[in-house]
Amino acid sequence: MEKRKKIIVVGGSAAGPKAAAKARRIDNDAEVIMFQKNAELSMASCGYPYYVGGYFDNRDMLLSTPAGITRDPVFYKNAKDIDARVNTEVTTVDRNRHVVLFKNTVTGKTGEETYDKLIIATGATPLMPPIPGIDLEGITTLQSLQDADFLRKIGDEGVIKKAVIIGGGLIGVETSEALQAADIEITIIELVPQLLAFLDWELARLVENHVRSKGANVITDNGVAAFLGENGKLTAVKLRNGTELPCELAVVAIGVRPNVRLARDMGLTIGETGGIEVDAYMQTSDPDIYAVGDCVESVNRITGKKVLAPYGDLANLQGRVAGENAVLGNCVTFPGTIQTGICKVFDYAAGSTGLSESTAKRLGYSDIVTVINASLDIPGFMGGKLLVTKLVADRNTGKILGAQCVGPGNVAKQIAQWSMSIQGNLSVENIINADLPYAPPYSLAIDHCIATAHVMQNKMKGRMDGVSSMEVHQKVINGEKSFLLDVREPNEYKQIRLGIGEMLIPIGALRGRLHELPQDRNTEIICFCQISLRGYEAAIVLKHNGWKNVKVMEGGVMAWPFPREK
Amino acid sequence: MEKRKKIIVVGGSAAGPKAAAKARRIDNDAEVIMFQKNAELSMASCGYPYYVGGYFDNRDMLLSTPAGITRDPVFYKNAKDIDARVNTEVTTVDRNRHVVLFKNTVTGKTGEETYDKLIIATGATPLMPPIPGIDLEGITTLQSLQDADFLRKIGDEGVIKKAVIIGGGLIGVETSEALQAADIEITIIELVPQLLAFLDWELARLVENHVRSKGANVITDNGVAAFLGENGKLTAVKLRNGTELPCELAVVAIGVRPNVRLARDMGLTIGETGGIEVDAYMQTSDPDIYAVGDCVESVNRITGKKVLAPYGDLANLQGRVAGENAVLGNCVTFPGTIQTGICKVFDYAAGSTGLSESTAKRLGYSDIVTVINASLDIPGFMGGKLLVTKLVADRNTGKILGAQCVGPGNVAKQIAQWSMSIQGNLSVENIINADLPYAPPYSLAIDHCIATAHVMQNKMKGRMDGVSSMEVHQKVINGEKSFLLDVREPNEYKQIRLGIGEMLIPIGALRGRLHELPQDRNTEIICFCQISLRGYEAAIVLKHNGWKNVKVMEGGVMAWPFPREK
Repeated sequence: MEKRKKIIVVGGSAAGPKAAAKARRIDNDAEVIMFQKNAELSMASCGYPYYVGGYFDNRDMLLSTPAGITRDPVFYKNAKDIDARVNTEVTTVDRNRHVVLFKNTVTGKTGEETYDKLIIATGATPLMPPIPGIDLEGITTLQSLQDADFLRKIGDEGVIKKAVIIGGGLIGVETSEALQAADIEITIIELVPQLLAFLDWELARLVENHVRSKGANVITDNGVAAFLGENGKLTAVKLRNGTELPCELAVVAIGVRPNVRLARDMGLTIGETGGIEVDAYMQTSDPDIYAVGDCVESVNRITGKKVLAPYGDLANLQGRVAGENAVLGNCVTFPGTIQTGICKVFDYAAGSTGLSESTAKRLGYSDIVTVINASLDIPGFMGGKLLVTKLVADRNTGKILGAQCVGPGNVAKQIAQWSMSIQGNLSVENIINADLPYAPPYSLAIDHCIATAHVMQNKMKGRMDGVSSMEVHQKVINGEKSFLLDVREPNEYKQIRLGIGEMLIPIGALRGRLHELPQDRNTEIICFCQISLRGYEAAIVLKHNGWKNVKVMEGGVMAWPFPREK
Repeated sequence: MEKRKKIIVVGGSAAGPKAAAKARRIDNDAEVIMFQKNAELSMASCGYPYYVGGYFDNRDMLLSTPAGITRDPVFYKNAKDIDARVNTEVTTVDRNRHVVLFKNTVTGKTGEETYDKLIIATGATPLMPPIPGIDLEGITTLQSLQDADFLRKIGDEGVIKKAVIIGGGLIGVETSEALQAADIEITIIELVPQLLAFLDWELARLVENHVRSKGANVITDNGVAAFLGENGKLTAVKLRNGTELPCELAVVAIGVRPNVRLARDMGLTIGETGGIEVDAYMQTSDPDIYAVGDCVESVNRITGKKVLAPYGDLANLQGRVAGENAVLGNCVTFPGTIQTGICKVFDYAAGSTGLSESTAKRLGYSDIVTVINASLDIPGFMGGKLLVTKLVADRNTGKILGAQCVGPGNVAKQIAQWSMSIQGNLSVENIINADLPYAPPYSLAIDHCIATAHVMQNKMKGRMDGVSSMEVHQKVINGEKSFLLDVREPNEYKQIRLGIGEMLIPIGALRGRLHELPQDRNTEIICFCQISLRGYEAAIVLKHNGWKNVKVMEGGVMAWPFPREK
């Protein structure tokens, strides 16, 4: 009889348990041991902000199967035949002897186990800024279940009144919402000039406007210089510009760093990104060792470049791949990521897949074309909500490189559609006549994503000369003499208007009021409406009547990220 | 100066206005005339059931732009420079003279207009069964705005107590929900053995169970023999089996027939499906005539076969294509349909894209593989709701041929994902590691669609021997001696159970209770759980312990469409 294969998994949070379970299912003979430093196993850590925010009260749900069984060592033994050892840190791996050395963090007891194949899933650790006062009481992250317990308790107690969130990324924004739900006054501090770095600035600004509208303060382009305290307790956050923000709580959410200490000590290759280097089999530089989850670097499928992509969904998928390869030999691959992500931001969602314009430009993609489109997600009579999408495509091939979407509408479906279309290598032309599920409760007759492709096509075919809200804003600031034409109805103008010197001529009246426009046919005229569909029609009318420099402000009033008159 | 091109559009409901508007935008010089037989233009007819059902009360929203402007001839003239003529029926087209003859249906006045290019968008008409009593008062369809007004009034008045819906398709089901919202007792009659023919039987049955749970009656496999009445008013519907259903209202929704009278009279080629034959340019057998919308036949992109696909979204997309080709000459194409559709059914949605198993088999696809997967759409702690998906793939290539999804969960996103993946020519393998937008408010860590691909992969690799609920049910009925093993927890079994002779052994106890199973290792054992993930794990354990004929019932208890003990 063949010797039982012995698989050791280091890490029991997300990728680790998935790898262990997959290995077990593929090879029921194998011995599978999983070491977990924490007391808990297989925590639904992406759910922490929602537990903190009171979306649900039963903490056990974070640690249980849908059937209500706690995912503890007994469960792993009985249901999965996996030897899960909690509170147990793997301290060293002796690759020559194929041995892991471990230590119980509670009892201090040490031991060792041999392995045939090792799977490393050591995760990532929140970055902490090396600044004065970092050790004061009242400063936390939202990474562990203990962090979640701490923050939930603060919310439940209702004593703390002011909190500062350091970092305006996904976790920072989710935590802001969670704490504000507990009536805590929130200020978000972000070092760069925008929240949510996966978005381009103008979409991020729409999100920021929404966050502010919900009563949270946002300070961008500023960092934390020090934490100030009294008697060991946090009393304020001091910013680089000298501002002091009184607060009793600070949550640090400036990103995570892959936990590669163990891998580095073992002599495994660490990539330039700081994550463990793995190939498509999730195999490290040691053929007997795989690595998965937040501790590894992944390949971006669009650029071919290595990236850190610490997403819970990818961790699970990578775990499956490594689990199967560890027991069968390399047979399945993980193709990499297109860095699809989404987060809830109060009543908005913000999502992205593929490349943003700023990322594409940073990586040297010069010949790209972008467009912004705004519309409802479903018809107005069904209670439709706004979506604003920015699409990035290759100018020559029309191939979709990325899409971002924000708003109160159904962002998740939009991003899902774009991510599938990128994975299917589709171009703008392919989306033009896409056959998507239409019924009024779920979509417009021409889905927002298809309409976005239509606008992009108009731009690529030279039928529409699009201009971004940022360019228009800059022109206004520079005092350029562009003529700004709002072609909405008076009732729309009365409710919301930009107030940047625009003239209002409803599209239905435009043909009869052309004499009111600058008669110099070379004057730059920028048309817009609520979402700039009528703006596009207006531009066609003007061009037809001889104006030579007519543009359309993409996304219209709905995608305008700057302050409005009304 | 070149002569102005003259474009005539016949039909002003959906595809027609889109074609006219596109032609206008592409060629601002052209003369565009649109003839509409009805009084209204560009009606949001897919919204009628929701107006009838009281989702909204402002009927004008069905006829207005998002800015609140009624889409009447004045709007078309002013905003679009389109000459829209309502109440005007095109009676004849003289192709030799390039002339359309029309008649005002109100005044009786006739006239003619020449055309350079003609676009036919004459739509479809509801089929009416040629049976006694069809002319009784109280029998209607839900096709026109007048129908919607009639049904809405009935709902508002609250006098009528019982209605029969003839036809269990999309419109029938939507109408049932709308009328039931007005406290009318509903019975749906369907000739074939299931509702919603785009679904395979077992998924349709889950929908039917839901419809019944909402208090509506459903009678399948039975047709209407006659409408019975007194004093010219409907009093009952008589079924083929003799049953008489007393009712004051009957809504006929047994399908639609393309309106091809005009096209046929003109001598245009009509396809075998009964729709006007068009090529990818939406051009008819006459190069100066295009046709779009419900009156044409389309190509199914998967099978290459002609089909009728009377969907509002396709009408719009086809209209754009014809509008552009009519003014520029043939330059853009419509690729056809994958017959993606979705409808709301009370608290469920039911959607489909590509081929169902029954359609695929009917068309001679012999080497296909199917799988059913059930799971929540988002985590339980976020209030996740059930989704049941049936995936159809080519057995050899793994190429996705179709997917159906039903349930209270986010069906639209699932179908959108599958439809994009079909349009991207993706295979099951490509979905295995898809990078989709994950966050707890929007998805499971492994999205339902990816999990479905995982189960399919397990099946295709021979790791899981799946059996459908229908096969299991048949075995039970036939008295076959299969051993049925439910591996859920006692609390789950207490709440819901099949009661088909199954034994309950929770997965966590299974390894210790193998002696309770039939010791003849050739006995067929069928494992299942709530969704059959644990069922799959149980099957692996049994196979490992020597049982040779172990199967997994796909979709588990959640996808069981038959009556349950509890």
